[in-house]
Amino acid sequence: MSMEVISENRCYGGVQAVYSHPSNTCGVEMTFAAFIPPQAKDGPVPVLWYLSGLTCTHENAMNKGGFQEHAARHGIAVIYPDTSPRGDGVADDQAYDLGQGAGFYVNATRDPWRRNFRMYDYIVSELRSVVTANLPVQDVHGITGHSMGGHGALTIALRNSELFESVSAFAPIAHPTRSDWGRKQLSAYLGDDETAWSNHDSTILLEQNGWKGDILIDQGEADQFLDLLKPEALADVMARRRQPGLVRMQKGYDHSYYFINTFACDHVEWHAERLHQTRH
Amino acid sequence: MSMEVISENRCYGGVQAVYSHPSNTCGVEMTFAAFIPPQAKDGPVPVLWYLSGLTCTHENAMNKGGFQEHAARHGIAVIYPDTSPRGDGVADDQAYDLGQGAGFYVNATRDPWRRNFRMYDYIVSELRSVVTANLPVQDVHGITGHSMGGHGALTIALRNSELFESVSAFAPIAHPTRSDWGRKQLSAYLGDDETAWSNHDSTILLEQNGWKGDILIDQGEADQFLDLLKPEALADVMARRRQPGLVRMQKGYDHSYYFINTFACDHVEWHAERLHQTRH
Repeated sequence: MSMEVISENRCYGGVQAVYSHPSNTCGVEMTFAAFIPPQAKDGPVPVLWYLSGLTCTHENAMNKGGFQEHAARHGIAVIYPDTSPRGDGVADDQAYDLGQGAGFYVNATRDPWRRNFRMYDYIVSELRSVVTANLPVQDVHGITGHSMGGHGALTIALRNSELFESVSAFAPIAHPTRSDWGRKQLSAYLGDDETAWSNHDSTILLEQNGWKGDILIDQGEADQFLDLLKPEALADVMARRRQPGLVRMQKGYDHSYYFINTFACDHVEWHAERLHQTRH
Repeated sequence: MSMEVISENRCYGGVQAVYSHPSNTCGVEMTFAAFIPPQAKDGPVPVLWYLSGLTCTHENAMNKGGFQEHAARHGIAVIYPDTSPRGDGVADDQAYDLGQGAGFYVNATRDPWRRNFRMYDYIVSELRSVVTANLPVQDVHGITGHSMGGHGALTIALRNSELFESVSAFAPIAHPTRSDWGRKQLSAYLGDDETAWSNHDSTILLEQNGWKGDILIDQGEADQFLDLLKPEALADVMARRRQPGLVRMQKGYDHSYYFINTFACDHVEWHAERLHQTRH
């Protein structure tokens, strides 16, 4: 449960830090970023997990997401995990959307991935323990993410409703079992038996189980990847199940960090309202 | 006065754009970024210039500065120029603090720099014309910047008080004629006669001429480059001249973009208040 400080910078009265720690789950040293708001000086604060998209590390949203200002106002910590194990000894693929930078938040069961690519367990269990053991946070968690990370946030929350109090997503890969952003990776990591895939498809999981609270989804109307993201599948299930929540189709916005940055305020507020009212 | 669109992304209801244009002043194609707030749909808006520091391009503050949210709220455009001419045919130096990425906002008079390194004229005259001719902005300008860009903002404003209504800086190189961030570059670009340097030292310019309005300076107390920045020289002159303004020494903050991001809100508000009351 030890971790090493890579950097700590004062930010909005709190601290924007980067840490690394040995990961038993992934078999390598893993890096993550954490924003600790100023309120943590007076006692532990709730945690918002932000899962990043394809090609990202812990750094992208830390630098470009714009969450810190709002997290500092609302008194919640933000954790930015990496999107995969990394390093010379870790399997990889030349494509941007498989291997390092593209863990898809699953536990791989197929070679060469199964040795290190266990991002589902890493997020749900190991990094959660590292964070709660080492940082001034409550064991009260919300989760969000963008694109592949939106997929990760939704599927992880839907399968672990006892561990997360709130969930939202920015432009999530909403139906990966029916998308080229999903079928390729689920096949590589989990094998060709598609019954193993449904645990990693938020549209299927929501149809099966629903979600205990409400859900916030933001999607850019001018997103260049709409055909791969398939928000209509998730929106359809939400409407048919009468699932409380909002699916907001944001006119003119694309898939970039400018979209995330613009609506970071709303998502942080959404989670803060739900996390602060959780008894702990 | 033509320019080419490199990218345009919806951002906080406005547009975050990147443009390029042929520069007569610098003799190469130059790239800059511009945030246009939503209010520009209803008529031209004032301009805030943000000059970046050593090693930066137009991209760094566009992605990490956090100005767009506040500029969208206050209805002002933000222009992010590059910090030097660039390209294979442009002189350079192996050091990070000379040549490409380190223009220091002067007009070089010495070889090999004088052919392209004319960032003073580029900002004050050419890019200003390109911006006002092509973008939905008023000819009403404020200027700020960070580190080398703080030096640029202060010296350009102090020498052109008829062209700028407001000025501020983040951790500026405040007294370059007495700093290793300054003496090396002014010598290379302008030659060894130090009388030519004083036009590019905000401490000297302020002592000579003052500034028509008030000045906002933010400086991190934990800035790793304090000895090179010399805020005490500028603060001393401001106090002796009874120059209206604020010099804020911000406890715990370093030289990073987390510092800039934290106080971007205050600087945008400072400029917006002064620019919106300017008759045009």
